[in-house]
Amino acid sequence: MAKDRQIRNIAIVGTGVIGASWASLYLARGFNVTATDPAPNAEANLRKFIDAAWKDLQVIGLSPNASRDHLQFTSDMKKALSDADFVQENGPERPDFKIKLFADIDAATPPDSLIASSSSGITPSVMQSKCTHPERVVVGHPFNPPHVIPLVEVVAGAKTLPQTVEQAISFYRSIGKKPIHVRKEVVGHVANRLQAALTREIVYLIEQGVIDVADGDTAVCWGPGLRWGVMGPHLLFHLGGGQGGIQHFMEHLSGPVATWWKDLGKITDYTPEVKQTIIEGTLREAGNRSIEELELERDSMLLELLATRAKGEKAAQAPTARGAKQARSA
Amino acid sequence: MAKDRQIRNIAIVGTGVIGASWASLYLARGFNVTATDPAPNAEANLRKFIDAAWKDLQVIGLSPNASRDHLQFTSDMKKALSDADFVQENGPERPDFKIKLFADIDAATPPDSLIASSSSGITPSVMQSKCTHPERVVVGHPFNPPHVIPLVEVVAGAKTLPQTVEQAISFYRSIGKKPIHVRKEVVGHVANRLQAALTREIVYLIEQGVIDVADGDTAVCWGPGLRWGVMGPHLLFHLGGGQGGIQHFMEHLSGPVATWWKDLGKITDYTPEVKQTIIEGTLREAGNRSIEELELERDSMLLELLATRAKGEKAAQAPTARGAKQARSA
Repeated sequence: MAKDRQIRNIAIVGTGVIGASWASLYLARGFNVTATDPAPNAEANLRKFIDAAWKDLQVIGLSPNASRDHLQFTSDMKKALSDADFVQENGPERPDFKIKLFADIDAATPPDSLIASSSSGITPSVMQSKCTHPERVVVGHPFNPPHVIPLVEVVAGAKTLPQTVEQAISFYRSIGKKPIHVRKEVVGHVANRLQAALTREIVYLIEQGVIDVADGDTAVCWGPGLRWGVMGPHLLFHLGGGQGGIQHFMEHLSGPVATWWKDLGKITDYTPEVKQTIIEGTLREAGNRSIEELELERDSMLLELLATRAKGEKAAQAPTARGAKQARSA
Repeated sequence: MAKDRQIRNIAIVGTGVIGASWASLYLARGFNVTATDPAPNAEANLRKFIDAAWKDLQVIGLSPNASRDHLQFTSDMKKALSDADFVQENGPERPDFKIKLFADIDAATPPDSLIASSSSGITPSVMQSKCTHPERVVVGHPFNPPHVIPLVEVVAGAKTLPQTVEQAISFYRSIGKKPIHVRKEVVGHVANRLQAALTREIVYLIEQGVIDVADGDTAVCWGPGLRWGVMGPHLLFHLGGGQGGIQHFMEHLSGPVATWWKDLGKITDYTPEVKQTIIEGTLREAGNRSIEELELERDSMLLELLATRAKGEKAAQAPTARGAKQARSA
């Protein structure tokens, strides 16, 4: 695999909601996108999705060469892949299907191109198992919807080369995503596990009759969730430690956290009763607001928050760049 | 206890960072505040804190009668409490001390006034145990800093009257807070448990070598944390279920969540090694940014996010009010 194959042409395999969202993002970042999907109405649905997503992407900001005209669609996967520099795969989440699909993608894609899978449930070692060039296969798992949420989880399989991971991370970073390197293949990667950990305790407290559904939502989105919307938990602990920072926090304030760990709920399944409680409680919380109204609420706030974060990043970059220079000259 | 004693005078017992933050908020909401603390420099430190917090409160919005001149300070707790309509207690977190303190507060406060404790670690049943009028004692636990973060957790003790809880909730709501009713006394109330649940999985993944500290922070604040900054997890699941909403989510999409629950880390303590890894990783992530710079970054983004949320609430209120009216007339 060439270390620096320039990425101009991106192939999207599978144009369901995840694939269509990726396609929108890549077009907005100025790439040529060739999408492929065997479903009958795939092209029309994809173009419809992109038109809707484009409004958000205009708010987030379009790159110089961004254009919806740079989209091509073909139901012939081989054709879509023949000159792809980068492939983003979004096929069905069935291991057998995925192994065969990756063997086919691998055979049709130039051997020095990168192949990334959006899979949340299948490990890269499994997906790459029948590839001739497995060394360029990674997971590049987005958080939905990929054209809005910056996180991408990059995971290598047993046969993936380290430089593939580096290339994928630097590619995603170059288009404004926030990639992380998941260093071991674990169930659910990282973000879904973290989401599950939080949800588990909420469901436990609902089941125990400590809170109702709406209060669980309030506890997150008007409490710690506000902070997680602007900064990660450990950097927040660094600030929670006062002048002593994270050192002080770990030495003197981590005790209560561990105390709470011991008392957390240990549930491993949703009971039918708690499912029903959650359904009823959530519908009560939603009240008269339709799914569409709530989506609009969520997305308009999310776009404003992203604009706030972008400003915050710019402000933070000046001292960080200075710091990097100082570190280099030290 | 009178059901509707009007709240004009608020007493703050204990003016450390939490008490000082509450005092700032109550002044900004137009109340008369009398603060008391036995520490030598308490008044000067309190006024300094309020002056700094006032800048944030001006951004968040001051109520018509807001004034820092409505603050009185006395080291005589009895005097501070004699005409208090509402007491917000923020004393040291030691059970013996707290039991005695509450007996004293109870004796000095008009018997139809409400007494709320900011305690995160001691249950209201313990605190109220030696009070003559324990029925008006609740926990009103804020999320730090109380003058910025809207969440307040209201918890009753064994001897607390239900109407005390209602009054506390409606008081906090009337000044723009987002109170929740914690229906059972549990360790850490709710938000700290949720924070602990999320942190536990991050620490586990760090310990397992799956992620480093910075990637754990990125996974939250550029991923699901962005959404938790605008909406609670179950309302988000309602939208994640597509047109079928939460019903569809619970029936067809909750399976993977439960799968992840089974695989989550089970750690119950910080090892010395993981503490050291977290300290080093957090300092690396902070880079050249000082605690002050990072605080400024966090707080300026937080205030913008709160403004976004306030706008979102206003937009959402119209249909909700309509819905409530329809429900009433149905």
